[in-house]
Amino acid sequence: MTESFQRADGRELDQLRAVRITRGFTDNPAGSVLVEFGNTRVMCTASVEEGVPRFKRDSGEGWLTAEYAMLPSATHERMPRESMRGKVKGRTHEISRLVGRALRAAVDLSQLGENTIQLDCDVLQADGGTRTASITGAYVALADAIAVLKDRGVVPGEPLLDPVAAISVGIVDGNVCLDLPYEEDSRAEVDLNVVMNASGNFVEIQGTGENGLFGRDELNDMLDVAQKGCFELIEAQKAALGW
Amino acid sequence: MTESFQRADGRELDQLRAVRITRGFTDNPAGSVLVEFGNTRVMCTASVEEGVPRFKRDSGEGWLTAEYAMLPSATHERMPRESMRGKVKGRTHEISRLVGRALRAAVDLSQLGENTIQLDCDVLQADGGTRTASITGAYVALADAIAVLKDRGVVPGEPLLDPVAAISVGIVDGNVCLDLPYEEDSRAEVDLNVVMNASGNFVEIQGTGENGLFGRDELNDMLDVAQKGCFELIEAQKAALGW
Amino acid sequence: MTESFQRADGRELDQLRAVRITRGFTDNPAGSVLVEFGNTRVMCTASVEEGVPRFKRDSGEGWLTAEYAMLPSATHERMPRESMRGKVKGRTHEISRLVGRALRAAVDLSQLGENTIQLDCDVLQADGGTRTASITGAYVALADAIAVLKDRGVVPGEPLLDPVAAISVGIVDGNVCLDLPYEEDSRAEVDLNVVMNASGNFVEIQGTGENGLFGRDELNDMLDVAQKGCFELIEAQKAALGW
Amino acid sequence: MTESFQRADGRELDQLRAVRITRGFTDNPAGSVLVEFGNTRVMCTASVEEGVPRFKRDSGEGWLTAEYAMLPSATHERMPRESMRGKVKGRTHEISRLVGRALRAAVDLSQLGENTIQLDCDVLQADGGTRTASITGAYVALADAIAVLKDRGVVPGEPLLDPVAAISVGIVDGNVCLDLPYEEDSRAEVDLNVVMNASGNFVEIQGTGENGLFGRDELNDMLDVAQKGCFELIEAQKAALGW
Amino acid sequence: MTESFQRADGRELDQLRAVRITRGFTDNPAGSVLVEFGNTRVMCTASVEEGVPRFKRDSGEGWLTAEYAMLPSATHERMPRESMRGKVKGRTHEISRLVGRALRAAVDLSQLGENTIQLDCDVLQADGGTRTASITGAYVALADAIAVLKDRGVVPGEPLLDPVAAISVGIVDGNVCLDLPYEEDSRAEVDLNVVMNASGNFVEIQGTGENGLFGRDELNDMLDVAQKGCFELIEAQKAALGW
Amino acid sequence: MTESFQRADGRELDQLRAVRITRGFTDNPAGSVLVEFGNTRVMCTASVEEGVPRFKRDSGEGWLTAEYAMLPSATHERMPRESMRGKVKGRTHEISRLVGRALRAAVDLSQLGENTIQLDCDVLQADGGTRTASITGAYVALADAIAVLKDRGVVPGEPLLDPVAAISVGIVDGNVCLDLPYEEDSRAEVDLNVVMNASGNFVEIQGTGENGLFGRDELNDMLDVAQKGCFELIEAQKAALGW
Repeated sequence: MTESFQRADGRELDQLRAVRITRGFTDNPAGSVLVEFGNTRVMCTASVEEGVPRFKRDSGEGWLTAEYAMLPSATHERMPRESMRGKVKGRTHEISRLVGRALRAAVDLSQLGENTIQLDCDVLQADGGTRTASITGAYVALADAIAVLKDRGVVPGEPLLDPVAAISVGIVDGNVCLDLPYEEDSRAEVDLNVVMNASGNFVEIQGTGENGLFGRDELNDMLDVAQKGCFELIEAQKAALGW
Repeated sequence: MTESFQRADGRELDQLRAVRITRGFTDNPAGSVLVEFGNTRVMCTASVEEGVPRFKRDSGEGWLTAEYAMLPSATHERMPRESMRGKVKGRTHEISRLVGRALRAAVDLSQLGENTIQLDCDVLQADGGTRTASITGAYVALADAIAVLKDRGVVPGEPLLDPVAAISVGIVDGNVCLDLPYEEDSRAEVDLNVVMNASGNFVEIQGTGENGLFGRDELNDMLDVAQKGCFELIEAQKAALGW
Repeated sequence: MTESFQRADGRELDQLRAVRITRGFTDNPAGSVLVEFGNTRVMCTASVEEGVPRFKRDSGEGWLTAEYAMLPSATHERMPRESMRGKVKGRTHEISRLVGRALRAAVDLSQLGENTIQLDCDVLQADGGTRTASITGAYVALADAIAVLKDRGVVPGEPLLDPVAAISVGIVDGNVCLDLPYEEDSRAEVDLNVVMNASGNFVEIQGTGENGLFGRDELNDMLDVAQKGCFELIEAQKAALGW
Repeated sequence: MTESFQRADGRELDQLRAVRITRGFTDNPAGSVLVEFGNTRVMCTASVEEGVPRFKRDSGEGWLTAEYAMLPSATHERMPRESMRGKVKGRTHEISRLVGRALRAAVDLSQLGENTIQLDCDVLQADGGTRTASITGAYVALADAIAVLKDRGVVPGEPLLDPVAAISVGIVDGNVCLDLPYEEDSRAEVDLNVVMNASGNFVEIQGTGENGLFGRDELNDMLDVAQKGCFELIEAQKAALGW
Repeated sequence: MTESFQRADGRELDQLRAVRITRGFTDNPAGSVLVEFGNTRVMCTASVEEGVPRFKRDSGEGWLTAEYAMLPSATHERMPRESMRGKVKGRTHEISRLVGRALRAAVDLSQLGENTIQLDCDVLQADGGTRTASITGAYVALADAIAVLKDRGVVPGEPLLDPVAAISVGIVDGNVCLDLPYEEDSRAEVDLNVVMNASGNFVEIQGTGENGLFGRDELNDMLDVAQKGCFELIEAQKAALGW
Repeated sequence: MTESFQRADGRELDQLRAVRITRGFTDNPAGSVLVEFGNTRVMCTASVEEGVPRFKRDSGEGWLTAEYAMLPSATHERMPRESMRGKVKGRTHEISRLVGRALRAAVDLSQLGENTIQLDCDVLQADGGTRTASITGAYVALADAIAVLKDRGVVPGEPLLDPVAAISVGIVDGNVCLDLPYEEDSRAEVDLNVVMNASGNFVEIQGTGENGLFGRDELNDMLDVAQKGCFELIEAQKAALGW
């Protein structure tokens, strides 16, 4: 840690922002969660539809897919609405795909029957870490949705696997920092997102040298801190679910 | 009122659902309001951008425009996301235009300077009356945004006009009912939306015989009830604004 | 009526423009009508397709839908072609939906069999009142199309209901004027469109205070004048149909 | 000519359908023409806009461009509206480009000043030959529009060149036929469209062996007949223009 | 030939550029050919899909369709990528349709079974004549694909017809020139594309007076030269196929 | 390494496929490279445009952006063309963004002047590793384009930084394998893409447990093998560039 470095919000380098997970945020979807990482707030819902996409038909398996989006007023400067532009931005596509891959690691599709779970992660307020908050909240919404499916008796097995959570780590002014808010994210030298389960195994890692390269040692330091963060988030998920 | 008619939620025929208006719902827009009409919840924000669209340039006047949208998980059955479809539905367009017209009646564009106010009404949960809740909440977000503009000293005059609010009235099983939830709305014979100010003057009325025609007397009965509803909503707006 | 007010075209305040309804304007659709309200000219066609949209399948009922559009050269200043822009404007969507709702009130879908009637209202020349002319002309095209269906023996019942017609009323310089041409429409304080049947019952009303609010009395004055206009239009429809 | 061949409409092999050219069909565009080749009817308009596209800016020259489209109800079976599909069909693009090229041969862009002429050819009723009728009618609309420009004093020179007209020729059951209606066009072995001026020089030829190849002799026979047709159309254009 | 005229690349007026046809250019499609006309290089592939489009279903016949496109870096100035623009340019549509028509003349669809052959002509480098190179190369890819189909035993008959090839001819500075490179094409007075078989019969001709009209004699001169070019190209096709 | 494991193509676990880098593959772009990793072939071009996007204007810096795409016939089963679908797939967007980020790490934008380098990576044939081949080839195209810029005297400084290369590693049947072809990629348990420079510093890492999670040890094993691959690719880049 560099001598003079202080995080703007006073946190320790390896400290998460305040995490809040509110279940039952809305009533219509099978699972509906508001997840907050500090000022970042994402509404994560899990809806269930009978049937599966064509490439899964007659496989006896289910499917899970995800869409991520920002409300136009979520950011400091309002952004044009993607539906009005008529096309989705690359960043949106990229994060939707990441969320889908991450959560498919938390579900045993062979136990789901030919049902599709559609996750929607809509960012109400953005202050960095929207993709990691989305993944972390979506797991809880997924758990609630699967409980609904089991109650209805449409899934005979146990599709839900162990929790996965996600967090960002970055190098800011030479310091490895956990859970970057927008202010740090926008000037970080390196940005790493990690999706992990409670055993410390990786579902996905994505690291980018936004303003500089990073060495193997720095990667290891970041992974250590990320693991600490993911473990704490998984505790928060379990607490929210009453496990 | 027909003998046996009872509203499912136990309300009187001319009674509003519980109305809640929460200011400061998010931090980034100049105005941000969560408005609730019963289970209908809409996030209404007002963002300010310097400059005006081309058709207003060099007019010395400002502009106000609005976009309405539903989150895909807002409805009982999840709806496809409009950004992914690549086009906006007619219903969405129609309501966006209605909200814009209604709120332009609440602002004196000549006092706004060459600034644009962008309203966003994003429905988090839909249970009927999303367009009227949007208009009612948007006024409060607009008021907050204009206060911000005045604090910044960018508007010399007083652009904010008297409150406008909106409510739906319908004829359900022959009874004139105020503020229809989805269950009533979907089977109403007639559906009327009224946008009104505190003097009982109309900004807009839209009445449709969805499953039947309606006569002049029925229209008058509906307008009486709508006026009662709008006046109560305007009181709620004023209370929320501390006026 | 204000002292000095004179309509540019010399009409009385409650006088329609010259109305012309030409049946059999083109040969291919089952019904094809050119309707003219003064200089406004709309080609209204009704085409019949076997089958119904998904949400009506196996209902035993038919469906009716409408599309409204302006030719790019219909207006004083040429407008970009919507097909080239790749998207339909909100105004176009809004009017298409209005025309569809209005004409569904003129047909008993349960008597139509599982057939779809597609109305197309293409504005050849625009001088105000294009949506009301569209509705008025579309009824005649619909009547012709249903006669064709009955001749072919594909509809056993009688799907055609009583005529509906539509007219605009506005307040211009404080005067309630019937059937506004573009010049009046663009400066009207209030604009009201009324869709009505021969009994004086409403199918739809849409009133907007474009440049000012309007009170209950003004609404009533406008509705009186609108009723006169609609009754005259229904006479014109009947005359065109030889009823 | 094969022994038993009779055209369904009784015409001679080298005879045009009845041609009607109606100027001033609508009032708003600088030039507006209804052209009819038998049952084919196209509304051709020429609108004038100040300025030129980017690639012509500061060239001192003008530009001319064209858009062709079919109304959805123009054909026997109603076709989906291109604006609703969100994209233009290849055939539409192809014909728009052909019309633009053909009419640019009838105007001296260097005499036009930095103005753009926008031609719109909207097919009201289609019975074969819509592209050739479009070109033929568009010349007359162009002539009227240029006269307007000259009256306004915005073009100092004489941009209008000699008339161009277009006609289709085909081989049907082995017979070279002029001006094919839909019934012949759909079963023709060869289809040739010719755009020509009064000196018999070609602006464009497009010949396609739709259901078979064609030799040099057949091409020559078709060109002879096409020339006869174009000369007659140019006479009709001149008569319409009072030249 | 005008006295002083010299082609920039030293060719005779009626001489083709160097033609190279490379079969098996890529491995995945049933047919894959790189065709080069001088510096113009097009990758032509033929892929086979089971089944036919709706309008051919249950006809017992096959179908053939084509798509032409330019890589964004194919031209001297990079062009925007059509997939990113969200729509295909008119020129692209026009050429795709031409290639499809041309190659359908080289296949007997009734002998193909209910299979679809999809041709893709992707221009890697553009120096004029991309559409004629596409057609010429696509025939060879088609021949290879049909051979694959026959080997697999899915086509009982002989769908492949005699070769078709295509070439451009133009009038440059008054001289009829064969196979125009970009430099000549961009300043040609007249541009003619001819698709022809080995008997000298036409599949398609498209001639345009880009910067001037052309008479019957000029057309005949151009057709003579085009025939020479097509015959040579057909020899090159046969040589490539080892016929 | 599991006892019985043999790679289908006989390679060692940590062995690259044959790498070929062909400079000057096409003539028009400033840099044009064909890169081959075994059967994967990508055409990588670098085009230079004056000026920069809006968000970089007046910064004195340049910009670099990238687009990745597959030709429809590149894959075993032909894929629909994205330009015809009217929208770009999420995977395409994701890879385009990755390539852009990776190559921006190889250029000093402050030395580029206000110029934009547009990279295009078009996959001619896909057999796994298309994104890593794209990055590796794009560096060489970038180097050539910058040399052109320097020759033209438009960049005073030295924008080109040290080479970056990219490679995939995966775990297949429990074995860490370098440079996966499609057959291995489609059944890998874990898939990791690494972008690295010659000092072994990371530009980007992306690891996904496609069919299972992965631990820290496995990550380390994969990173070791990836480093070996990247170093060899950087040698190949240098050899191609004659460094």
